[in-house]
Amino acid sequence: MYAAGDVRIENRPDPKIQSSTDAVVRVVLSCVCGSDLWPYKSMPAVDAGRPMGHEFLGVVEETGSDVSGVAAGDLVVAPFTYCDNTCDYCVRGLHISCRNGGRYGFDGVDGGQGEAVRVPQADGTLVKLPVTADSALLPSLLTLSDVMGTGHHGAVTAGVGRGDSVLVIGDGAVGLCAVIAAKRLGAEQIILMGRHSGRTDLGRAFGATDVVAERGEEGTARVRDITGGNGVAKVIEAVGTRQTLETALAAVDDGGTISRLGVPQYEDGPVGPSMIMRNITLTGGASPARVYIGQLLPDVLDGTITPGRVFDQTFTLDQTPAAYRAMTDRHVLKALITP
Amino acid sequence: MYAAGDVRIENRPDPKIQSSTDAVVRVVLSCVCGSDLWPYKSMPAVDAGRPMGHEFLGVVEETGSDVSGVAAGDLVVAPFTYCDNTCDYCVRGLHISCRNGGRYGFDGVDGGQGEAVRVPQADGTLVKLPVTADSALLPSLLTLSDVMGTGHHGAVTAGVGRGDSVLVIGDGAVGLCAVIAAKRLGAEQIILMGRHSGRTDLGRAFGATDVVAERGEEGTARVRDITGGNGVAKVIEAVGTRQTLETALAAVDDGGTISRLGVPQYEDGPVGPSMIMRNITLTGGASPARVYIGQLLPDVLDGTITPGRVFDQTFTLDQTPAAYRAMTDRHVLKALITP
Repeated sequence: MYAAGDVRIENRPDPKIQSSTDAVVRVVLSCVCGSDLWPYKSMPAVDAGRPMGHEFLGVVEETGSDVSGVAAGDLVVAPFTYCDNTCDYCVRGLHISCRNGGRYGFDGVDGGQGEAVRVPQADGTLVKLPVTADSALLPSLLTLSDVMGTGHHGAVTAGVGRGDSVLVIGDGAVGLCAVIAAKRLGAEQIILMGRHSGRTDLGRAFGATDVVAERGEEGTARVRDITGGNGVAKVIEAVGTRQTLETALAAVDDGGTISRLGVPQYEDGPVGPSMIMRNITLTGGASPARVYIGQLLPDVLDGTITPGRVFDQTFTLDQTPAAYRAMTDRHVLKALITP
Repeated sequence: MYAAGDVRIENRPDPKIQSSTDAVVRVVLSCVCGSDLWPYKSMPAVDAGRPMGHEFLGVVEETGSDVSGVAAGDLVVAPFTYCDNTCDYCVRGLHISCRNGGRYGFDGVDGGQGEAVRVPQADGTLVKLPVTADSALLPSLLTLSDVMGTGHHGAVTAGVGRGDSVLVIGDGAVGLCAVIAAKRLGAEQIILMGRHSGRTDLGRAFGATDVVAERGEEGTARVRDITGGNGVAKVIEAVGTRQTLETALAAVDDGGTISRLGVPQYEDGPVGPSMIMRNITLTGGASPARVYIGQLLPDVLDGTITPGRVFDQTFTLDQTPAAYRAMTDRHVLKALITP
């Protein structure tokens, strides 16, 4: 990406092992993330393009001398940041804060939207998949790199449990995965706020019991109607605008929890006296996808959850610019990319 | 209070039972709260003065026909809001949200800074004290109406437990009570941020292991020094300004929790991308003082905790305006008022 709206396919040097803890992974599947659309809408022009993409699975091609957990030929999935999985932050489930971690597309590390990626901290980062590269499960397994783990993080940090009522704000891939996660953790009532009927229909298939298409005050009034007037104890905010945070605050019950996913597109939020008088908790954050892969993988393998259904169109690598446009125009929910 | 800076002592009608669930309490001790100082600094002028005070203990004088839990002659303490203690919110520990609750000084209910108070929902609100009205424990018992329970709420919602490091921001009565609460819940390292050495000395006596007098960046640098660079996992923010929230965010470790006490003096706070990338949780709120009275009372009665030491000067009811001035000028930490 060279600037907002300017995504180009270019030849880059082939990734090579640079450190003994690196692996080179040949990408089998990658995709475009909702968070890729923020720079697509706003990134100032840069001279050297920024490699894009942080969700991919592929086959290990080569490993550094200190890598023992994966080997050439292994099919692996990568969480959306790399991490050593052993530092004090990783041990506490804060892989995003890993002392040796980082982001794809930065600091000389390749992006996932490409043919191959040098993955630092390969042992800590990559998870071997017990399927072959032609498995029909690949799209669902790819969601473990980000959106499914992120939705799961929302449900976990909101404290969703058996019998709960949960509000999910946002019908993007993360919101829909949060519906899957809430249902998986036992929620009984899952209200999905979204206006795109194709997406909310998928949300219903994933377990949403109610859909609210209205926004703002009208939307929160509907949520309060559905929940008997009090609002919802647990809210997963999967959009990231100030307006959706305001909706979350208006829809949450006193004493409730709002879990935010995705990167806020605001610096300041309405966290004044009302939040204190109502004992509202604001939590959530960037998911420790690495640790959730292990927790969610069995359910993907046995078909209990099918998050891969969020991919509604496949593009070749050359078509990636069109994938960005289609997702920005909301013609496509989530674009799968095949090299 | 008629306006900012304008507190007057006036004769008001004697409180009378108005509802069968009321009690009239003759005040034995009351006090001025840090939160009373916000309107003292900013309240627009009003024609009918606002009765002030929400912390008091006293002797029951009369009860409505439906009151069975307390009787004339009982010494009782009142939490800072009245509540039925039976509604769905109270049952969940959200007494501040009680469906039949309310605030002293509003809706025809007297303030605690007076000779007597009509207490609605007397059975749900008042807690009988097993001491006599001349007990030396009365000041500590009075703190159960607000500041001690509020400090405890901060420690509870921050998740303070055995062996923890905790940062308490603010050397006011609530901050000092939060130190007591953190120590009581097993914290091993309690860092108190405050600049008033008389108060931080009391904080040390209450269990603070470190005192940081610096503010802003210098203060957070000191906190990070003390904690080995990473910051503190649990922060209790007991001031309520935007600056102290910023200090909390700068001092908290990734994955940490900030519990806010007191009413924020801001509408918007810095809850943008950094909070998400660092997985910071913002919690806390108005304390369910009613339920904490029962939990903290034994420790007050046996002298394990001595929160009454926050009262450093006693004023008669007639001197209440001087008490407001003295607390505003920070000459007095917390003013005790005797009718």
